Amino acid sequence: MRDEAFTLIGRNPVLEAFRAGKTIDHLFVQDGLREGPISTILREAKKHDTTVDFVKRSRLEEIAGGESHQGVIAYLASFRYYTVEEILDYAGERGEEPFVFILDGIEDPHNLGAMIRTANLCGAHGVIIRERRAVGLTGTVAKSSAGALNYTRVAKVTNIGNTIDALKQRGLWFVCADMEGETMYRLNLRGAIGLVVGSEGEGVSRLVREKCDMRAAIPMRGDIDSLNASVACGVLAYEILRQRHYE
Amino acid sequence: MRDEAFTLIGRNPVLEAFRAGKTIDHLFVQDGLREGPISTILREAKKHDTTVDFVKRSRLEEIAGGESHQGVIAYLASFRYYTVEEILDYAGERGEEPFVFILDGIEDPHNLGAMIRTANLCGAHGVIIRERRAVGLTGTVAKSSAGALNYTRVAKVTNIGNTIDALKQRGLWFVCADMEGETMYRLNLRGAIGLVVGSEGEGVSRLVREKCDMRAAIPMRGDIDSLNASVACGVLAYEILRQRHYE
Repeated sequence: MRDEAFTLIGRNPVLEAFRAGKTIDHLFVQDGLREGPISTILREAKKHDTTVDFVKRSRLEEIAGGESHQGVIAYLASFRYYTVEEILDYAGERGEEPFVFILDGIEDPHNLGAMIRTANLCGAHGVIIRERRAVGLTGTVAKSSAGALNYTRVAKVTNIGNTIDALKQRGLWFVCADMEGETMYRLNLRGAIGLVVGSEGEGVSRLVREKCDMRAAIPMRGDIDSLNASVACGVLAYEILRQRHYE
Repeated sequence: MRDEAFTLIGRNPVLEAFRAGKTIDHLFVQDGLREGPISTILREAKKHDTTVDFVKRSRLEEIAGGESHQGVIAYLASFRYYTVEEILDYAGERGEEPFVFILDGIEDPHNLGAMIRTANLCGAHGVIIRERRAVGLTGTVAKSSAGALNYTRVAKVTNIGNTIDALKQRGLWFVCADMEGETMYRLNLRGAIGLVVGSEGEGVSRLVREKCDMRAAIPMRGDIDSLNASVACGVLAYEILRQRHYE
């Protein structure tokens, strides 16, 4: 049974959640309903890339458990944004040198979800994303993260460059993905580290790249330019894990 | 309805196809578009004497069926499937020990595309996919491969187990992704090798797993079960590359 704290029943609660910027994982709408308030809700859902299921009235009644649902039920995402400080705290609690992902403008929610999944599994303490021109924690991201979003601290910052500067003061080194950099196997990627990965199309932006201490190239032995962004992120993250724990 | 296996949607896939010397039957370009990448595509089309149709945006959207077309769609003469023999021949031509991907039932075209992209870049000689209950070479796969499908040999087989048996006779060793296996860094992944990766939901099927010589586990230091399938494939493929070329 789902935690009822995260179940919104009825039109107003759902609409208010959208307007308050909450992340809705999943929206259930009664089959055939399209009038006024429902169409507003569907428009919001589309805007936020929310998964929508059109279901029978009986299914809604079952979920609502007696409450008046007015044809709409939403499952609220159970995650929040953390602060960068909370990410460092978490590393401290585990007695480990900080390892964070810094994602510079990922636009594809499937890629962001896959990267959060990778962050969780490779032992990173958190993920820092950019506020503007980047996807946030949408329902699609949550879904693509395969549950990792429930365990992984994600912070959103307005300026990646400033965040890197602040974290350098705390002893972190930064390595970015850059195909013109040094082959990743030849770099020393141990210690407190931030892995900086850019967007699918453009890579890491110049200003951010210039702040990095190291530029890591994934060897390319083929005919095309680049790996899928979440695959590249995974390959680099696991090279960091290998150097930290298996060398 | 046209077979989507031969439909390229978006600027990069179309441009890559021209550059790789593929034959494009028919090019559709959105009326009025002429800027940068589009004009390059039109120049290529002229050079190759390709039939070009300027059409309305709505027509492109209809053909694209929801995919982002960026004003350009092409009908390709064909992606053909190669034979397993042709994959081995290619390794021979390059004077390298064979390195092949064996994908046991990938259903998500974005994952298959990302894996073909990885195969191309990590120096694999080809990709073997399963004929049944798996996605084939669709337009979405081509697009997700970011052009890699033009350079990478993909063979389709009816029985993965039989193919593994046949390739063992040719000197290949097989390693599969298996979280209960030995940590990948501790395995010897050099030499003629087949990397076997299973579907997103179920992993490698039992019969196929039992045919493998080694089971490789990617270290998991988090809370969830598994990486995204194409990320896992990339991490394993690059561990093979590292052992082959950087150790």
